[in-house]
Amino acid sequence: MTILTLHPDRLFPAEPTTRGIARALYAGVKDLPIISPHGHTDPSWFAYDQPFADPAQLLIVPDHYVFRMLYSQGVKLETLGIPTEDGSATATDGRAIWRIFAENYHLFRGTPSRMWLDWVFAEGFGIDVRLEAETADHYYDLIDAALKTPAFRPRALFDRFGIEAIATTESPLDPLDHHRAIRASGWTGRVMTAYRPDPVMDPEAAGFLDNIARFGETAGEDVSTFAGYLRAHRFHRARFREAGATSTDHGHPSAFTADLPRAEAEALYETVRSGKASAAEAELFRGQMLTEMARMSIEDGMVMQLHPGAFRSHNPSVLARFGRDKGADIPMPSEFVRNLKPLLDAYGNDPRLTLILFTLDEDTYSRELAPLAGHYPALRLGPPWWFHDSPEGMRRFRQRATETAGFYNTVGFNDDTRAFLSIPARHDVARRMDCGFLAQLVAEHRLEEDEAHEVARALAYDLAKAAYKL
Amino acid sequence: MTILTLHPDRLFPAEPTTRGIARALYAGVKDLPIISPHGHTDPSWFAYDQPFADPAQLLIVPDHYVFRMLYSQGVKLETLGIPTEDGSATATDGRAIWRIFAENYHLFRGTPSRMWLDWVFAEGFGIDVRLEAETADHYYDLIDAALKTPAFRPRALFDRFGIEAIATTESPLDPLDHHRAIRASGWTGRVMTAYRPDPVMDPEAAGFLDNIARFGETAGEDVSTFAGYLRAHRFHRARFREAGATSTDHGHPSAFTADLPRAEAEALYETVRSGKASAAEAELFRGQMLTEMARMSIEDGMVMQLHPGAFRSHNPSVLARFGRDKGADIPMPSEFVRNLKPLLDAYGNDPRLTLILFTLDEDTYSRELAPLAGHYPALRLGPPWWFHDSPEGMRRFRQRATETAGFYNTVGFNDDTRAFLSIPARHDVARRMDCGFLAQLVAEHRLEEDEAHEVARALAYDLAKAAYKL
Amino acid sequence: MTILTLHPDRLFPAEPTTRGIARALYAGVKDLPIISPHGHTDPSWFAYDQPFADPAQLLIVPDHYVFRMLYSQGVKLETLGIPTEDGSATATDGRAIWRIFAENYHLFRGTPSRMWLDWVFAEGFGIDVRLEAETADHYYDLIDAALKTPAFRPRALFDRFGIEAIATTESPLDPLDHHRAIRASGWTGRVMTAYRPDPVMDPEAAGFLDNIARFGETAGEDVSTFAGYLRAHRFHRARFREAGATSTDHGHPSAFTADLPRAEAEALYETVRSGKASAAEAELFRGQMLTEMARMSIEDGMVMQLHPGAFRSHNPSVLARFGRDKGADIPMPSEFVRNLKPLLDAYGNDPRLTLILFTLDEDTYSRELAPLAGHYPALRLGPPWWFHDSPEGMRRFRQRATETAGFYNTVGFNDDTRAFLSIPARHDVARRMDCGFLAQLVAEHRLEEDEAHEVARALAYDLAKAAYKL
Repeated sequence: MTILTLHPDRLFPAEPTTRGIARALYAGVKDLPIISPHGHTDPSWFAYDQPFADPAQLLIVPDHYVFRMLYSQGVKLETLGIPTEDGSATATDGRAIWRIFAENYHLFRGTPSRMWLDWVFAEGFGIDVRLEAETADHYYDLIDAALKTPAFRPRALFDRFGIEAIATTESPLDPLDHHRAIRASGWTGRVMTAYRPDPVMDPEAAGFLDNIARFGETAGEDVSTFAGYLRAHRFHRARFREAGATSTDHGHPSAFTADLPRAEAEALYETVRSGKASAAEAELFRGQMLTEMARMSIEDGMVMQLHPGAFRSHNPSVLARFGRDKGADIPMPSEFVRNLKPLLDAYGNDPRLTLILFTLDEDTYSRELAPLAGHYPALRLGPPWWFHDSPEGMRRFRQRATETAGFYNTVGFNDDTRAFLSIPARHDVARRMDCGFLAQLVAEHRLEEDEAHEVARALAYDLAKAAYKL
Repeated sequence: MTILTLHPDRLFPAEPTTRGIARALYAGVKDLPIISPHGHTDPSWFAYDQPFADPAQLLIVPDHYVFRMLYSQGVKLETLGIPTEDGSATATDGRAIWRIFAENYHLFRGTPSRMWLDWVFAEGFGIDVRLEAETADHYYDLIDAALKTPAFRPRALFDRFGIEAIATTESPLDPLDHHRAIRASGWTGRVMTAYRPDPVMDPEAAGFLDNIARFGETAGEDVSTFAGYLRAHRFHRARFREAGATSTDHGHPSAFTADLPRAEAEALYETVRSGKASAAEAELFRGQMLTEMARMSIEDGMVMQLHPGAFRSHNPSVLARFGRDKGADIPMPSEFVRNLKPLLDAYGNDPRLTLILFTLDEDTYSRELAPLAGHYPALRLGPPWWFHDSPEGMRRFRQRATETAGFYNTVGFNDDTRAFLSIPARHDVARRMDCGFLAQLVAEHRLEEDEAHEVARALAYDLAKAAYKL
Repeated sequence: MTILTLHPDRLFPAEPTTRGIARALYAGVKDLPIISPHGHTDPSWFAYDQPFADPAQLLIVPDHYVFRMLYSQGVKLETLGIPTEDGSATATDGRAIWRIFAENYHLFRGTPSRMWLDWVFAEGFGIDVRLEAETADHYYDLIDAALKTPAFRPRALFDRFGIEAIATTESPLDPLDHHRAIRASGWTGRVMTAYRPDPVMDPEAAGFLDNIARFGETAGEDVSTFAGYLRAHRFHRARFREAGATSTDHGHPSAFTADLPRAEAEALYETVRSGKASAAEAELFRGQMLTEMARMSIEDGMVMQLHPGAFRSHNPSVLARFGRDKGADIPMPSEFVRNLKPLLDAYGNDPRLTLILFTLDEDTYSRELAPLAGHYPALRLGPPWWFHDSPEGMRRFRQRATETAGFYNTVGFNDDTRAFLSIPARHDVARRMDCGFLAQLVAEHRLEEDEAHEVARALAYDLAKAAYKL
């Protein structure tokens, strides 16, 4: 067995002077509350505060970062207990799943998953030996036992993690019962929803026509007209704001936007409602709706988030057997300069709009996103996203975006995760990497240390709170 | 108030051995004269040697790097005194403008503007406190007073900055009176023009048809034929060479080139002259004219520069109210391999041609530009341009281009600025970053120190002088 | 004269703690045997063990990295003795060629060629002064003399270099006589071929129709039908496997794949055989054949390699006078996500397939390749290729690919060279850079040192052996 320790200097630059500065900067931000303005935790956890299931169900089965890597090296998803679309059986023995994971833990060397998991093991559960085949059962027993204690209930963890506010993400089709239950419970943790209308805005979404029908019904609006459809959005946005939402989120294939004359938009909606929209018409509708969302954000103050650029469910065999979100979403080249122009022409200069941009195409950081955000008052840059939520990904983001967009056109960190236990680990990685980046600027006399302290705090706390109006 | 100092080791790597090498390399190049072969200073400054106006008019109003960032954070351009297209009033009180700038100076943390400005304040004006709200008036008074002294007249600064040669950029429509006045004045500072024919080569340029009419008239050529139009170019190129020009400069949307049969080129010119060229025909004409310019460069020896890849005036509201060049030019993906082929097929192997390539798309450094420049005798790589004229931008350029193109297919530094006071600061940043890059090669035993000294001098001085034939 | 030494710490990070870790990691891998699973050495060298010709013929004339750079700075290829297509004379005096090289050796500063060459000079030939004009003759005499000794015969070098296995690359039109001769000779060095069917799979290849005719004849198959053509592939693949081949290699313009219904594939083959295939049909055929090759790999176990993205012979003047592979191949943007989908839809989840991907477009590392390889069991990432087989190229590869694909979806190092003497230098650079990368992870407490030792060994030896089934 090998010792597991989290080194206090982890992720800081090795050069001693720079490391010393990084340590000092980090000391000033490490205990700041966590603002988690974008993520995918399950609000029912906080509503009902039930214990999490076994270690495998907590840490492996729902984490596509984890099973993706195992799958890439030949581990069958069935043996990891990933549920199937047709309900046919897969592994259910948490201990057996955990052993496979432990035997293959070396595959995660050099990945952020490894750092997050080690944090969960060491800080979360107090484990002091490394995960490997021979410690698999030790881990399983220890985590399983801990999960049965009150200290590992969701609300206890929420407090322990120092979460000041956390956003979940729901579709307009969601009744928001869990969020209502949270409020009704008297518990004071701040859990907000966010408005994610993809299922009713993307004509290519599964069940789109049914979705807009239900969307209209629950809003009490006739969605057979574009006007009624837009009113239904206003209704649901208001409903979400009542459940604490301060933001909307849009996961589109591209950053394409449009701002059609009203009659054309209405005709397009007709086509879309007929179920016969072509791929190009579907893209046009999504683009038009982003501009409509911007218009509504100007009215109601909700911050917009745009997450473009994933080829979803690239692997049809995995999709057919295991469904969506199984680690087979692959980034594509993204374009922002022409795609965002219609929306920006309309509202890019409007101080009432905040549009936060994310990308999976790092090439756009210095070429497109930083120049755009360094000019348009409405634009801000989200943190490195998904595959780039990683030490090297964060370093590249700061290196490429800062000189043109500065720090103040960015919005701090988002964890974007449903892996609740990893949230503090992820924020900690971000704080450490930002402090390391700032320490380098200080050590190279490109920024003064007193200013670096201010920026470190902004990146860890202030900017997220301000940008998301929390 | 906080002290403002420029640390002597600024921008050098923090690791002590590497820093020591960087210091030694920099000591060998820091006092070399400045060769500024590409830029946008105003020749009337040198012709008439009048004092600069107030601090805001000198450092904020003309600097789109500065007001772009302020604008992105909600500062109105009107309050910064940016002149409007319709002549409607904007702020005129330099002190008030300066205060807004000072209050927002933290926005520039981590940007090259911050480093250049601090240099201007500390080295240029001898200021020893940091710019912030409470020092705004102190700064304003001090700079304003300095600008009224002879030491801050353009020619005095030219001498103080150690400028050996500086190029301005003019259109063929420019009578070059200021350049003539410089020569007539007996002042011995070397100020050259450069031939920038975009207004008469780009059918989509504002006033294009009027431009070519005037272009022909001043040349005494009948530009109703392509032959006459080309003769007019020859005339103006000769006129520019008489005003010291050794280079031409081409700011095109893309690097597209063409080499049409003469009859097709003539027919294309007919179309273009009719004012009815399509976007594709306009692009074809620009591409054809790049090849024509290469042909003329082979005749007259002028070095060509190509600056492609900006989406100009992306923000129509800002364009309508404030005009062009207001910080709303946004880079686009660029392609060189297919686009340059027609020109390279014709002249890429000709030792009489030098074509210097710039890019806003850093992805092309290692993928396209370094392989092209590492093969074609006619090609050289310009320094990191515009948004990439920055410490991280320079580091990426050397890291990505050097291994394939070497150092000797690059051409040293260009400041590309009209911010006259920042010129020494910009060259100093480039020299420091290049010395830091070389120091890392030496510290990692990838280059010997005696060789690094030679390369440092080449990058700071020799290569620019040679490439631009100065 | 200046001393030439190879510093024992070359390429290691300068920061002392990190360097110490790098040294320790490197000590564990530096003497591991060389696995060279992909390259272009000439099997006749090993078959007949004849001495190499003079220094220029060994180190300059065949190395496009070397003469490309000289050419870019105005050195005529004729003066370097590059043979012409029409057989017209070029320089033949090795010493004169060598002097030109020596005079221009400074051009290689900062390039990997410089590091490889210095290794060849110092380690290979024991030279202790730097190459420059005044040492040109000393070098020439010393290398020329060495080449006449038994120690510099191919087999002696093979042993001295510690090569455990090396692959050459042959076309299906090659009779593999040299490989047969190697086996017949009783020499025990392991030299394998690899199956490179581009000449019979690319309808745009020179002599394609003749090629498939010969391809069919030698296989005893009627290639007038697609079925016969596929059988001929099976025949030749078996023939190659008998000559030790464990892999196929495919150098395509793009990563495009197709998986047509059989009747369409047959019709496409008809078109291709007619010699009238359009560019699009040629691309479709190449893409279809990649999927056919995957199908056969699943049958016979050969590992597939795909090298897409070069614009071959970009310079028509150089092509006409000197032929292909003269340093004028230029990378283009590459796309993998959509292009590979047909092949991956068919076989991406098949554990019997290994498809190793290379790229010249570094942007795809983090955006496309690492996410694909981090999911599909059939995919692995080849090392940084060609222009990116360089210290900075290797660093970028690990920085961008590791966090998403891990280390174990990569396949160690390939030298990909015909410059036999540079092979140990290239592997040494890769080992040093990987150890440096790992040392940084250790120094930043992102990986434990005992794990780094395991990974270092995997990257230097184990992964190549496993991926290529050696």
